[in-house]
Amino acid sequence: MIFLPDGVQDFLPDEYAIKHVVEEKIRKTFISFGYKDIMPPTFEYSSNFSVLFDENNLYRFFDKKGNILALRPDVTSQIGRIVSTKLKDKYPIKLCYVANVFRYEDTQSGKMREFTQAGVELIGLNQEESDAEVIALSIEALRTLGLKDFKVEIGQAQIFNGIIENINLGKEETIQLREFLEQKNQSAIETFIKEKKIKDDKARLLIELPLLFGDENIILKVKKLYNIPKLNDSLDYLLKVYKILKDFGLSKYISFDLGMVQNLNYYTGIIFRCFIKGIGYAIYTGGRYDNLLSVYGKNVPATGFAISIERVMLALKKQNIETLNKVPKVLIKYEEKARDNAYSKALDLRLHGKIVEIYSINRSFNISEDDFDEIIYLEE
Amino acid sequence: MIFLPDGVQDFLPDEYAIKHVVEEKIRKTFISFGYKDIMPPTFEYSSNFSVLFDENNLYRFFDKKGNILALRPDVTSQIGRIVSTKLKDKYPIKLCYVANVFRYEDTQSGKMREFTQAGVELIGLNQEESDAEVIALSIEALRTLGLKDFKVEIGQAQIFNGIIENINLGKEETIQLREFLEQKNQSAIETFIKEKKIKDDKARLLIELPLLFGDENIILKVKKLYNIPKLNDSLDYLLKVYKILKDFGLSKYISFDLGMVQNLNYYTGIIFRCFIKGIGYAIYTGGRYDNLLSVYGKNVPATGFAISIERVMLALKKQNIETLNKVPKVLIKYEEKARDNAYSKALDLRLHGKIVEIYSINRSFNISEDDFDEIIYLEE
Repeated sequence: MIFLPDGVQDFLPDEYAIKHVVEEKIRKTFISFGYKDIMPPTFEYSSNFSVLFDENNLYRFFDKKGNILALRPDVTSQIGRIVSTKLKDKYPIKLCYVANVFRYEDTQSGKMREFTQAGVELIGLNQEESDAEVIALSIEALRTLGLKDFKVEIGQAQIFNGIIENINLGKEETIQLREFLEQKNQSAIETFIKEKKIKDDKARLLIELPLLFGDENIILKVKKLYNIPKLNDSLDYLLKVYKILKDFGLSKYISFDLGMVQNLNYYTGIIFRCFIKGIGYAIYTGGRYDNLLSVYGKNVPATGFAISIERVMLALKKQNIETLNKVPKVLIKYEEKARDNAYSKALDLRLHGKIVEIYSINRSFNISEDDFDEIIYLEE
Repeated sequence: MIFLPDGVQDFLPDEYAIKHVVEEKIRKTFISFGYKDIMPPTFEYSSNFSVLFDENNLYRFFDKKGNILALRPDVTSQIGRIVSTKLKDKYPIKLCYVANVFRYEDTQSGKMREFTQAGVELIGLNQEESDAEVIALSIEALRTLGLKDFKVEIGQAQIFNGIIENINLGKEETIQLREFLEQKNQSAIETFIKEKKIKDDKARLLIELPLLFGDENIILKVKKLYNIPKLNDSLDYLLKVYKILKDFGLSKYISFDLGMVQNLNYYTGIIFRCFIKGIGYAIYTGGRYDNLLSVYGKNVPATGFAISIERVMLALKKQNIETLNKVPKVLIKYEEKARDNAYSKALDLRLHGKIVEIYSINRSFNISEDDFDEIIYLEE
């Protein structure tokens, strides 16, 4: 079969050159902040991924002993395993990665099933400064590429968790309410509230949540209007993080969405996602997940995010941003007796950053000279 | 499960930092020679790989429609597909890649089932100059890393093919004879020759083949001693390639092994592999395969090779070669009112190639200052 399966793609030279530069620039930004990159295997035992992922979305297969393996749907699960079993307990641990992940999802909405994520995990810290730092890093990763017109929306997983606390909701009902919020579907929320007999401030807040987005004033407003235990703490925490990001000079990139719920329900604190002009999806998502690592045996807090490289590439295209530096291409044509000279000349030019191809003049085919910026003839 | 399946591994920060540098240096060498890198998907339809690989060595799985997919066992098959279906017929086409490949093989000999290959394919040329250029590039890829004490052994698939021509051998028998040669098992070859009633020069040459290695004189010797059709052409071709490599100043890296047979039997001309002091395996193999692309629908000649990144890393270790440049690490500790200053100072130092971490002095945990080369206190 000369076709490709749904959801995977070839990156041909022109596009891959851009992809590689994007990956390297983001990676270097992570490293400059003190993160260290790792590379877990492309597949491992499926059970390691079922903590976070529905098995139906995994690419699963058997080894010859009958064990179930799966292509990684994310790297965070693998980092959980690594931190728990292979690294010393010397916190903070700052890890990053650029890696392909695989999710068996519907491709109709244009989603790819193999895609590349660049991400970080800051492990062992649970202060507003560490959350602010991770968000700052996510912003710098885009700035280093020259991207503009993007906003990081910040929310708090605790707001939703605080509202449903002490309300008797089943797992399915919780998922449903979460979906209504995600869709900002107020009428569905209203019906839900009536059916579940949710009352007072909680009911009012649930209905209002889809509209509670904007700048930091939205937080101050909500603090005044609702009296729900823990809600004020959650909101104060967001204000502290915001204050730090403002000190960092990054407030123009920040907005709030108090109704934000992430589809991965392992977040326990601040959550965020970044939208950029002209692209309908978040180009990265992240947040705090203090309970995740305990699944793998270490009870340590963590914050992280993952950027979709393919979406960043799309954004760069939309914003007409050139990422490639033009490298001069040199063609050396030589007489046979000048071959040694041609080869050493080529090596030297390559050391100086040029792309060099050498061909003997006697060769029987034609090289298209238009592809080169400079042509050198060597006779001896 | 917190363990990993057989044959795959985690690259933790110290090791992965080296791996990444090795990959990038080799990649840059390829690109400086005019090759363009591509990235096909990690898996595709299994049928695309069965041209070159035994299905038992593939990691295969089903999609939800019942199609059989497989993790790529190499990239050459994928390049075959791409050249045949997606690229313009404008030759030469020079492609390269650094990619993980997956082979379900016995792990007892220390072989990994997921490993990284850096390779090139020069497509559309079939002259001694193009073969010499590809071999030269394979040598430069190791030289750029500072590796020493390696030899590229050159052979010719046509020698074996020429000998068995007009001898009535079944597929299994051909494979067996190939294995005897690979093992340099002269007594098994002798028995084989008697059973098959192979006679005269062909018999003599088959028995001698395992010993026909050394410098270019071995070729001159064989030319004199045996009279087998096509053999002389094959040997003359090797001498022409050698002459070019000598002009390039690379003859010290070259030796010949006329009894060399590669386990992939798609090679049709020159074949080569590189051994380095202290490592029992070839760290790269390559050769000419003029018929391979026709399987995918394009009848064009090609030469290529693939380097094992993991084996290169092992060789660097054995030769005590440092690949990492030490990057200075800076810790900035700041009073809260100096936060803006700390952040912009950090950004500036990072732009100048340093790794910088910033922490407020009031933080409740201890950063190990020994991990840093420089510590800066900012009070305002």
